[in-house]
Amino acid sequence: MKKYMEAIQAIQAFQEKKKNRGRLLINCPDQPGIVASVSQFLLEHRANIIESSQYSLDPEGGDFFIRIEFECPELKTSFPQLKQQFESIADTFNMDWKMTYVPNVKKTAILVSKEQHCLLELLWEWQSGDLMTDIALVISNHEDTKEVVESLQIPFYYLPASKENRAEVEAKQLQLLKEYDIDVIVLARYMQILTPHFVAAHPNRIINIHHSFLPAFVGARPYERAYERGVKLIGATSHFVTNDLDEGPIIEQDIMRVDHRNSVDELKKIGRSIERSVLARAVKWHLEDRIIVHQNKTIVF
Amino acid sequence: MKKYMEAIQAIQAFQEKKKNRGRLLINCPDQPGIVASVSQFLLEHRANIIESSQYSLDPEGGDFFIRIEFECPELKTSFPQLKQQFESIADTFNMDWKMTYVPNVKKTAILVSKEQHCLLELLWEWQSGDLMTDIALVISNHEDTKEVVESLQIPFYYLPASKENRAEVEAKQLQLLKEYDIDVIVLARYMQILTPHFVAAHPNRIINIHHSFLPAFVGARPYERAYERGVKLIGATSHFVTNDLDEGPIIEQDIMRVDHRNSVDELKKIGRSIERSVLARAVKWHLEDRIIVHQNKTIVF
Amino acid sequence: MKKYMEAIQAIQAFQEKKKNRGRLLINCPDQPGIVASVSQFLLEHRANIIESSQYSLDPEGGDFFIRIEFECPELKTSFPQLKQQFESIADTFNMDWKMTYVPNVKKTAILVSKEQHCLLELLWEWQSGDLMTDIALVISNHEDTKEVVESLQIPFYYLPASKENRAEVEAKQLQLLKEYDIDVIVLARYMQILTPHFVAAHPNRIINIHHSFLPAFVGARPYERAYERGVKLIGATSHFVTNDLDEGPIIEQDIMRVDHRNSVDELKKIGRSIERSVLARAVKWHLEDRIIVHQNKTIVF
Amino acid sequence: MKKYMEAIQAIQAFQEKKKNRGRLLINCPDQPGIVASVSQFLLEHRANIIESSQYSLDPEGGDFFIRIEFECPELKTSFPQLKQQFESIADTFNMDWKMTYVPNVKKTAILVSKEQHCLLELLWEWQSGDLMTDIALVISNHEDTKEVVESLQIPFYYLPASKENRAEVEAKQLQLLKEYDIDVIVLARYMQILTPHFVAAHPNRIINIHHSFLPAFVGARPYERAYERGVKLIGATSHFVTNDLDEGPIIEQDIMRVDHRNSVDELKKIGRSIERSVLARAVKWHLEDRIIVHQNKTIVF
Repeated sequence: MKKYMEAIQAIQAFQEKKKNRGRLLINCPDQPGIVASVSQFLLEHRANIIESSQYSLDPEGGDFFIRIEFECPELKTSFPQLKQQFESIADTFNMDWKMTYVPNVKKTAILVSKEQHCLLELLWEWQSGDLMTDIALVISNHEDTKEVVESLQIPFYYLPASKENRAEVEAKQLQLLKEYDIDVIVLARYMQILTPHFVAAHPNRIINIHHSFLPAFVGARPYERAYERGVKLIGATSHFVTNDLDEGPIIEQDIMRVDHRNSVDELKKIGRSIERSVLARAVKWHLEDRIIVHQNKTIVF
Repeated sequence: MKKYMEAIQAIQAFQEKKKNRGRLLINCPDQPGIVASVSQFLLEHRANIIESSQYSLDPEGGDFFIRIEFECPELKTSFPQLKQQFESIADTFNMDWKMTYVPNVKKTAILVSKEQHCLLELLWEWQSGDLMTDIALVISNHEDTKEVVESLQIPFYYLPASKENRAEVEAKQLQLLKEYDIDVIVLARYMQILTPHFVAAHPNRIINIHHSFLPAFVGARPYERAYERGVKLIGATSHFVTNDLDEGPIIEQDIMRVDHRNSVDELKKIGRSIERSVLARAVKWHLEDRIIVHQNKTIVF
Repeated sequence: MKKYMEAIQAIQAFQEKKKNRGRLLINCPDQPGIVASVSQFLLEHRANIIESSQYSLDPEGGDFFIRIEFECPELKTSFPQLKQQFESIADTFNMDWKMTYVPNVKKTAILVSKEQHCLLELLWEWQSGDLMTDIALVISNHEDTKEVVESLQIPFYYLPASKENRAEVEAKQLQLLKEYDIDVIVLARYMQILTPHFVAAHPNRIINIHHSFLPAFVGARPYERAYERGVKLIGATSHFVTNDLDEGPIIEQDIMRVDHRNSVDELKKIGRSIERSVLARAVKWHLEDRIIVHQNKTIVF
Repeated sequence: MKKYMEAIQAIQAFQEKKKNRGRLLINCPDQPGIVASVSQFLLEHRANIIESSQYSLDPEGGDFFIRIEFECPELKTSFPQLKQQFESIADTFNMDWKMTYVPNVKKTAILVSKEQHCLLELLWEWQSGDLMTDIALVISNHEDTKEVVESLQIPFYYLPASKENRAEVEAKQLQLLKEYDIDVIVLARYMQILTPHFVAAHPNRIINIHHSFLPAFVGARPYERAYERGVKLIGATSHFVTNDLDEGPIIEQDIMRVDHRNSVDELKKIGRSIERSVLARAVKWHLEDRIIVHQNKTIVF
């Protein structure tokens, strides 16, 4: 209860502090004048650029990517209009773009199975005010995490999944995600396969943690296979989910050193710590609109 | 000889490939319209922004920093004019700025004493085409590196230094640096103290490597002191030289893990490998105009 | 409650699995025959060496260190006798030694102030069965962590400390540590200075986490000072507490990369994650009898 | 020439310093009494154990591994006898074992193709006295490294290899290896496949560097494939060569962070630095008899 209040207060403080903050994320074919037009537009709307990163894939005319954070007086009121007026620039340059009002924190659903460490890390970061999102609900095919989730005033849905009831469960999941108006879906060691239908409904909005250094050990039992192979480093990979298993755009990876003394169980323990931090970083970057997906790869600004 | 030719060819290939490439590095008080003005200026001069990074120290009106790489047709011819015409914008926004024509590779002088590993790393990177600079000369107070330096067709000056002849040696050094029109001075484990006069003549243009993780172990014998203290990680720090010993703006640092089995000599061996890579990265970033110094700290874009 | 049961069950499973496991930790002047005598002793007592690490500081006759894990049938019953009979060997070689029966998990007291992350990490590891200890009590000069600690059935003592009542508080603390028969004291971001009297009573048994990469930033406000200095890596250090502030034997250190964009608050956030893992590793190694202190340094086997 | 003399002097100094130093490396089925017997044997021969590491795969009676460094007066004279007398203990415990006289530095052959960085790193370490071996010859299918190798007084053999002459070239290689009495073969980016015949003749004595984080990107063009996949870390792996391509026992691995801005060429540059250090470490550990191969995995003491 107390924890829940702390999280809510941290979000409110953030919303107050960032009440005039917006973000712009653009991906378009490169051509002269993009930055000039965008910055002129922001200037005319009294928006001051706080931070920006830009990158062109190929100077000879490839793709252009930019992320801008800006401050604009009275943005709460003017944001809808600002967004609408940007459309003509976006059209001119054929942009794939997104403009967000920072105080509108994204709504997140977390899906989890038996292993709790990734969920707990996200909840912890959230309580500490380090994860600026509204964790709207947790869905699990096990009841193990019900207590901790509900103790934080977060709705918990227990949907036991099996081969027989997959369609039914997924329909229920999709309904919940719609009902709660979810922006981001985090698979925090959720061990069920999602159907193409589910994935297609949330392009680049489902974040998974895979417990290996992809593309090594795609698929099941990566720690057992890492042990068998005798690797000297183990890792974890967070990626957007696509319909190719463990083949989606990689957001973040990290590793730790292991040696011959580590049993499979110890690899799993060490791995849990990597999984926790890799997933938390990936989710944070997504919440901060830092990630652009391009040709099954990510640009992380 | 062969190595020397490889380095020269790599530089020539780089100059050809980047013949229309310029860079702009700006530091000024933040205010609305900077990016709009600069990007409009570049657009009007047909310069396309390839990569840019911007950062504001404090949204409420602190300092503004930006680095832009751009491509501009016929830049070789138009560069002087472009630079001159930028002055009015620079004046408007009270900019501390630098515009460079990328094919004009900087001229570097390396100062070294007995320990050769940092010099050798720089020469190696240079031979491999990974360090885009003209290594114009090497100055040393020892003759140990004369052979290897001269084998690469690089002028080597042996200036033995002692307490008695410091003024004289420094005068000779300054004359050489002037004669060769040096842009960057790298202290690749140069164990003599530079005078305030020497330092003042090259603000933010002298790069040193200190063999510890600063601010730990400022001063002499850092590995011996690290051993005494029983640290579990040792490091190295590359920084711009100021008149406060080991207190200049830090450019890059790195560390490696050590344990109780490592003797002082082994710490030094391990440390050499860190020093090599940390110094090489710092020099590279400086050559690529990635570093802005602000209040004794660096912004590395 | 459930969490508490999981922790208890994990410890019980560990105790059953290791019911015949002992450890021997030795530090003595090097001389011929030590390993032969010790291994002969273990053989005669039917103890099989599972893992051992040995190290001599100086082959020419310096100090000798060894850690041995062994399995011995019916060790629960025979342990006291085994220990007693080892004394004659220990005397012969003038050993500073410790033999432990592994299922006797150590009793730990955690001292904490307002910042909770280090305490929470230890509790988490404990719940997950990754920290084999009996967390006997938590003492704090703030009430912030009371709820979470008591929810795990761990006694929580609120002892508000100030300059006026230091002697009184410390007397109460010492009484509690005695009452609970504490083996290990962990300062999990406990922001009060301990008196020499308190420290002397627990040699090499108080583990602290300092929020910097020692010996950089000894003392107060290390993140603020790291920010001021513009370092590119921040770190944390876990060490045994001695009467010289932040000068005790270092057990473990780690670092993370930061850059110019990170504010002091962000350094603190990043630092919390380092502090958590560095302290947890140091405590774990101590619980596993892996650490020998020698001349204000640690040998970690 | 000068460099060559430095290397030779470093080796001679090492040989003098370690003139009484021996190493023992053992792998056998675990059973009571191994350490007691070995240490008693060493004691009886007046050998003092300087450093030892032991590890048992499975306490319930699996494999036992130990590495011991010892000092023994007049070892130069007594070594052959010591080795012979150890045989009865080795037979008793069914040991797979190796006893080496440390001043007998191993003879190394380096095979290299066009890419020089790994070769240069090994030569550099050798010149600096950090790689205690006799680099007896370099064999290459290209002439690029001839000059640098011969400048160090090391015999260089140019054996151009093609599909047509593979058998002939390999016969010549094998003859050279025999002629020079080679102990260790290092493939320092040697891009030709070795035949099963060649591999079988040198079990666990051929060390390769693969330019990826195995088992990711087995086979050709790993950096191109890493770029395509959009990984956030790239790595290198050093392993013993077996007849399964890139499937031999892994000795060492390491990684570096990359991001979306890095082209394939930049991945290769970054990768070269990882390859250099990973291969150098693996070779060093092998030269120091630190590696035991067990079931296609390595134990590195």
